[in-house]
Amino acid sequence: MIDLSQIVKKAKEASQILSLCDTKIKNDILYATAQSISANTAEILFYNDIDVCAAKESGLPYSMLDRLSLNEKRVSDMAESMEKIASLPDPIGEIVEELKSSFDLEIKKIRVPLGVIALIYEARPNAASDAAALCLKSGNALILKGGSEAVQSNKIIAKIIKESFIKAGAPEGCTESIDSFDRNAVLELLKFDAFIDLIIPRGGKELVDFVKASTKIPVLSHGMGLCHLYIDKDADFDAALKIAVNAKCQRPSVCNSIETLLIHKDIAEEFLPKIFNLYKDNNVEMRGCGKTREICSQIGAAAEEDWDTEYHDLIISIKISDSISDAIEHINRHGSKHSDSIVTENKDSADKFLREIDSAAVFVNASTRLHDGSVFGLGCEIGISTQKLHSRGTMGLKELTATKFLIRGNGTIRQ
Amino acid sequence: MIDLSQIVKKAKEASQILSLCDTKIKNDILYATAQSISANTAEILFYNDIDVCAAKESGLPYSMLDRLSLNEKRVSDMAESMEKIASLPDPIGEIVEELKSSFDLEIKKIRVPLGVIALIYEARPNAASDAAALCLKSGNALILKGGSEAVQSNKIIAKIIKESFIKAGAPEGCTESIDSFDRNAVLELLKFDAFIDLIIPRGGKELVDFVKASTKIPVLSHGMGLCHLYIDKDADFDAALKIAVNAKCQRPSVCNSIETLLIHKDIAEEFLPKIFNLYKDNNVEMRGCGKTREICSQIGAAAEEDWDTEYHDLIISIKISDSISDAIEHINRHGSKHSDSIVTENKDSADKFLREIDSAAVFVNASTRLHDGSVFGLGCEIGISTQKLHSRGTMGLKELTATKFLIRGNGTIRQ
Repeated sequence: MIDLSQIVKKAKEASQILSLCDTKIKNDILYATAQSISANTAEILFYNDIDVCAAKESGLPYSMLDRLSLNEKRVSDMAESMEKIASLPDPIGEIVEELKSSFDLEIKKIRVPLGVIALIYEARPNAASDAAALCLKSGNALILKGGSEAVQSNKIIAKIIKESFIKAGAPEGCTESIDSFDRNAVLELLKFDAFIDLIIPRGGKELVDFVKASTKIPVLSHGMGLCHLYIDKDADFDAALKIAVNAKCQRPSVCNSIETLLIHKDIAEEFLPKIFNLYKDNNVEMRGCGKTREICSQIGAAAEEDWDTEYHDLIISIKISDSISDAIEHINRHGSKHSDSIVTENKDSADKFLREIDSAAVFVNASTRLHDGSVFGLGCEIGISTQKLHSRGTMGLKELTATKFLIRGNGTIRQ
Repeated sequence: MIDLSQIVKKAKEASQILSLCDTKIKNDILYATAQSISANTAEILFYNDIDVCAAKESGLPYSMLDRLSLNEKRVSDMAESMEKIASLPDPIGEIVEELKSSFDLEIKKIRVPLGVIALIYEARPNAASDAAALCLKSGNALILKGGSEAVQSNKIIAKIIKESFIKAGAPEGCTESIDSFDRNAVLELLKFDAFIDLIIPRGGKELVDFVKASTKIPVLSHGMGLCHLYIDKDADFDAALKIAVNAKCQRPSVCNSIETLLIHKDIAEEFLPKIFNLYKDNNVEMRGCGKTREICSQIGAAAEEDWDTEYHDLIISIKISDSISDAIEHINRHGSKHSDSIVTENKDSADKFLREIDSAAVFVNASTRLHDGSVFGLGCEIGISTQKLHSRGTMGLKELTATKFLIRGNGTIRQ
């Protein structure tokens, strides 16, 4: 059996080769692998079904089950994202900035790869192919460790990608899965700070906190989201209703769906009954503040902890706000700084919300569900960072790079 | 006595006010404070002299003593940097990127402040004013903790800046020094991960390692540097000699001076005697590899650990390289990924070096001493990051920001 340190060291070597790899070669590898994924759809779904059946038996919550399940559409999306990444410009070597010096110097800041990235992810087996495509294109080696609930899916997907990458010319060790290792492998992995340049934990708060507390390697965490939608007094009701339903119901299991709906007091009496009926039709359980229940007595009571709860299910908390400032204050206090949205026709209110909400993505008249690498034109994403450093929000190719200064002089010295 | 938690919480509040502060107000504060620093030059030098005398008595090494000492020029540089920062564009609100979506969305990525930054620094009392200027302009609150060797200098500089900032309209608590606290204050400070957004340790390896191991707060470390100069076989000798002397002798105590000189074997016999004489004239102690000593027997022998030693003093290790690849391999293995330079007239060699050296700044025909925020046109710097994440190399205004996505739709939802 191969030991973990060999995989990690091999990844470092592969990252050095990849960092100097031509764009054309990287793109060809991705196109070939997209085909390979499509050609192996049946096999992927066969192994995924084993995981899904086991998860159902073990009583995994709905949100996990939804993220775990693949179907033909989700597999073809994997292949499509890989092709999309191949079609995007290569971030490596891109000139980020040219600086003007009073010295006789030409100074450029260019993008370079980070090195070796480890992705530790729960459920969601399709995350592996997005990560593999992004890392290869950005010149980084990748080590994958998926959750035990998706072990069969993860193994087959990693196998298909790895074989296709190597066959098409990628360096040995550039994309490795350690799913066949036992639980302790994660803890062991976190110790290789001399070889791994970035750890991305993608999952619940428990996973993220554990990783952060256990490693000296820089961490970019993709935690869950406690997102809000605020319906301003100047909202267009049609847009507001459409967005409120979409942001809660379209895929409640994921991090960019909303958990709390805030409604300006001036329109609450008119708006609340309308959204109540729509949420009822969509089987959404509602939990309201006192004022909400005065208007709509059929809504259950929200407890204090509801404002801090990520349901990731068909449940929503509803609160009446006295003003936009009140709503902003609530969001900045209770939110997870992920994605928050306002519905308003008032330009000043929109500007105020955009300026004062301290979140990775702030929306006006749009659903928080749109915070996504593919929607944003990045092809796909390796996660959504809720940190401020090194990158914030959805992370695509550029976010997997560092920079380096290149300086050319003419015998230039410091006086 | 005020306790640390009050200072930290106050800084968080101040950062929220600062994040929305107009550019004009910030600039006026900086211009006023630059004047205040100049007007108090005598007082600053008086207190600095107390530190310097104490340091001499306690036998502080030369490199520390040099970084600790102020003079009229260094104080006027402090004021000048503050004015320069005032004159630069405000990074906050700057549009970094506009993304194209296939959805009906306008997506902008803009710069926002990080929040509260803590700078823990050794010696070098002028670092405080550079940090204060950069943080104020980038909308961040700052907590300063200097080394005990510079306590009198740090206290007076922090007092002048703080009083001038507040008088000119900055929010209370936006720039605080905790130099009057005892040693344990640093450890206590590192626990406030809910309030402090970034820690910058600026000093030796011991300080950086201690900070990294003791906090959950993101760290951007300014460690010391083990920098190299490689003289290629196609070097212009005049440029090579000038750069070799400047990079070692101009200010050996600082992180961007060189510790090792590499010379291509084909020119070693001609080049080595020339640089030997120049270094001898500059009182530089030389330690050479076997081949170096065959050519120049007056040079002492380098031990294996010399290639990994940061002298920060008038000492240099010298090695003959068989090829440019050999030199690159040596630098990537022994360097601190800070600043490395090649002297060559050969374009291919220059390109190879720029591409393959994995350091924050890679120079061609220029001294590594030029890796500096003011030389690079950034006004000044809060440090030089030798990490790859969140920023790499000299850190000015932009490097003290995070980003946020602003998205405008028209009732746009996810299908």
